[in-house]
Amino acid sequence: MAKIILTGDRPTGRLHVGHYAGSLERRVALQNSGEYDRIYIMIADAQALTDNAEHPEKVRDNIIEVALDYLACGIDPAKSTIFIQSMVPELTELTSYYMNLVTIARLQRNPTVKAEIQQRNFEASIPVGFFTYPISQAADITAFRATSVPVGEDQAPMLEQCREIVHKFNATYGDTLTVPEIVLPENRVCMRLPGIDGMSKMSKSLGNCIYLADEPEEIRKKVMSMFTDPNHLKVDDPGSTDGNPVFIYLEAFSRPEDFAEFMPEYGGLDELEAHYRRGGLGDIKVKKFLNSVMQSRLAPIRERRREWERQIPEVYDILRRGSEAARASAAATLCDVRTAMRINYFDDTALIEGQIEKHRGR
Amino acid sequence: MAKIILTGDRPTGRLHVGHYAGSLERRVALQNSGEYDRIYIMIADAQALTDNAEHPEKVRDNIIEVALDYLACGIDPAKSTIFIQSMVPELTELTSYYMNLVTIARLQRNPTVKAEIQQRNFEASIPVGFFTYPISQAADITAFRATSVPVGEDQAPMLEQCREIVHKFNATYGDTLTVPEIVLPENRVCMRLPGIDGMSKMSKSLGNCIYLADEPEEIRKKVMSMFTDPNHLKVDDPGSTDGNPVFIYLEAFSRPEDFAEFMPEYGGLDELEAHYRRGGLGDIKVKKFLNSVMQSRLAPIRERRREWERQIPEVYDILRRGSEAARASAAATLCDVRTAMRINYFDDTALIEGQIEKHRGR
Repeated sequence: MAKIILTGDRPTGRLHVGHYAGSLERRVALQNSGEYDRIYIMIADAQALTDNAEHPEKVRDNIIEVALDYLACGIDPAKSTIFIQSMVPELTELTSYYMNLVTIARLQRNPTVKAEIQQRNFEASIPVGFFTYPISQAADITAFRATSVPVGEDQAPMLEQCREIVHKFNATYGDTLTVPEIVLPENRVCMRLPGIDGMSKMSKSLGNCIYLADEPEEIRKKVMSMFTDPNHLKVDDPGSTDGNPVFIYLEAFSRPEDFAEFMPEYGGLDELEAHYRRGGLGDIKVKKFLNSVMQSRLAPIRERRREWERQIPEVYDILRRGSEAARASAAATLCDVRTAMRINYFDDTALIEGQIEKHRGR
Repeated sequence: MAKIILTGDRPTGRLHVGHYAGSLERRVALQNSGEYDRIYIMIADAQALTDNAEHPEKVRDNIIEVALDYLACGIDPAKSTIFIQSMVPELTELTSYYMNLVTIARLQRNPTVKAEIQQRNFEASIPVGFFTYPISQAADITAFRATSVPVGEDQAPMLEQCREIVHKFNATYGDTLTVPEIVLPENRVCMRLPGIDGMSKMSKSLGNCIYLADEPEEIRKKVMSMFTDPNHLKVDDPGSTDGNPVFIYLEAFSRPEDFAEFMPEYGGLDELEAHYRRGGLGDIKVKKFLNSVMQSRLAPIRERRREWERQIPEVYDILRRGSEAARASAAATLCDVRTAMRINYFDDTALIEGQIEKHRGR
C-alpha cells in the first residue's frame, strides 16, 4: 500500500518558530526521507473560516504567507502537493456523507473540540461549522487516502474520530476508505514550544512569537527579552532550566556545532545546563548564545523566503497546480465513495436495467 | 426580479394522495400558471440519506418512483427542472459556508427539527447530518435564487432559518443571496391529509396510504376500509363529518361534476355532509362515492405513469439533463458567493497584484 501523508495549517497568520519546531522541520525531514509515496500539505482556509467567518480577509491574506513559509522551510513542490482546502470542493461533499455516520453526542464528547470551544469562549454560540470540523477533517484525511498523519498528541482525538468514521463507512458500505495512522513526533520537546513570555501557547494576539520571516534585529530583541527563571536574580544564584523558555528553545534548536562555533567553552547543552543550575551563569550570556543559534537557523529560511517573495505569481501558480492535483485525487476517492454507497445513479447501468425490468412487469 | 420556485420531496417511497393533495396538484397549477420564470423540483436523496444512511438502497430505488409520480401528475420537464440533489455537489459547498453563520443553539431552537427528532426517536443519537439539514435546505433554496417556496405551514420554521442565513450572509459579505418567501396553500384542507386509518400522518410503515400508482382494485379496497366516525353505528344515527377521513378526502378531491356523474341525488358536498350529520346516510354509500371520485382523479395519473414506466431510460435522461441544468445554476450562485467572500483567490487579479506589491517592499 502506498504511504501517503496529509498535513496542513490554518492560514490565520504567518508561521512562527513554534510551527517550525512542532511540525515544519519534521515535515521537511519526512518529505526528504523518501519513505512516502505522496505528501499532501493543505492550507486549511475553509477550516479557518469556521471561526473567522466575519473576517475572511484575514484568511485570504495569510494563504500566501503560509505558502511562503512552507517554501522557505524547504517544502518542495516537486515532492509535496501544497493545496488550498476550499479549492477542493469534493471535501465538502465527502463531509456531507460522513455527517450521517456521526452523532451529535459523539461530537460533543470530542476532547479537542471541547477544549477549543472553551479556549475560544464560544459557549452557547458555537458556529455549526466549527462544531462539526472534526468531520470535515476526516474528509481531508480520507480524500487523499492518507495512511500517515503527523500531528501532536493534542490532535489524537481528532484522528480517533476520523478512524471511527472510516470504520463506520467501511462497515456500512463495504471496504472503501483507508484507515489512517497517527505519526507522533519522536522528540517530545518539539511538541509545543512556549511563547517568549513563557506562556504555554504562542499566539499572534499575545505578541509572544518569533516568526520565520522576522528580521535579525527583531529576532535579537525577542530573544533578549525572553522570560527565564524568575528566581535567578543574581548571576551566582542557582537557576532552573525546567520550564525555562531559553533552555527549551536551546533544546529545540541548538546543535553540537553551535557550541563549537559560538560557545567553545562548553562541550554541549548538558554542560551549559549544569552550569546554569549550579549558579554562576548569567541569563544574558545564555540568551546571546540562543540568539546566535536562532540567527543561524532562521537566516537560510528567511533568505529563501525573500527569494520566493519576489516570485509571488509563481507561488500562486504552485498553489493552483497543487490544488488541481489534490482535486483530481479527492475526486477519485469521492467516486469510490459514491460507488460504494451505490448513489452513482447515472453511471450504474445495472440500476437502470433493473428498473426497466421492474417496471416492465407492471 | 425573476420569480423562481424551489420545491421537492425525499425519495423514501412512492408518492401518495397526501402528497398530491398537499403539494403536487398545487405545483402543477403553479407550473402551468405562467407566473414563474423558473421552477426547480428537487429529488432530495442527500437529505433522505441523513436518516437513512444505513439503507441507501431505499433512497436509490425510490428516485425513479418519485420521478415517475412527478411526470404522472403533470410535472412537465419542458417547464420544470427536475433534478437529483446529490448530483449538484455545489449544494454541499454552499452548506459548508452557511454552517459558519449558524450557531448550534439556533439549530436546537428550530421547532421543526425538534419535532422531527422526537418523531424519529433519535434522542441523543441524532446524526449530525440530520441535525444540520435546515442549513443544507437553505443551500438548496438559495442556490437557485428561489423567490418562492411552496410548503405547508409546518415547514415555516425551516424557511425562517433560511431567511436568517440569507440576511446574515448579505450583512457579512454584501448583498449576494436572494431572500425567499414562503407560499402557503390557499386551501387549508389540502395541507395535511390523514391516513385511511384516521391517523394524522400517512406513512408507508403504517400501511395507511393510497398511492398514486395503486391499481383500481387496491384503491377500492383502501377506500372501503377507511376509518369514519366511530359513533356512527347505524345508518339512522347522526354522523360527524369533522375529522372524518372520508369527508376530508371528499373535500380534497371531489368536484361538482362528480355529483352530477356519480350522485345526482345531491347538489354538492354541502348537501351530502348535511345528510350525514343529521343521520340516515350510511358510510358504505359515501365510501362508494369517494371510490368513484378517487378512481376518476387517479385513473389519468396512473395511465400517464404506465406510459412513463415503459420509458425508464428517458426518465433517467430527464433527471440527468435536469441535474446538469440545476448544477449550472447552482455553480453560478456559488461563484457569486465565493466572490462576495473574496475567497476566489485564483480569479482575483487584484489579490495577486496586491500581494506582489506588499512583498516587493520587504
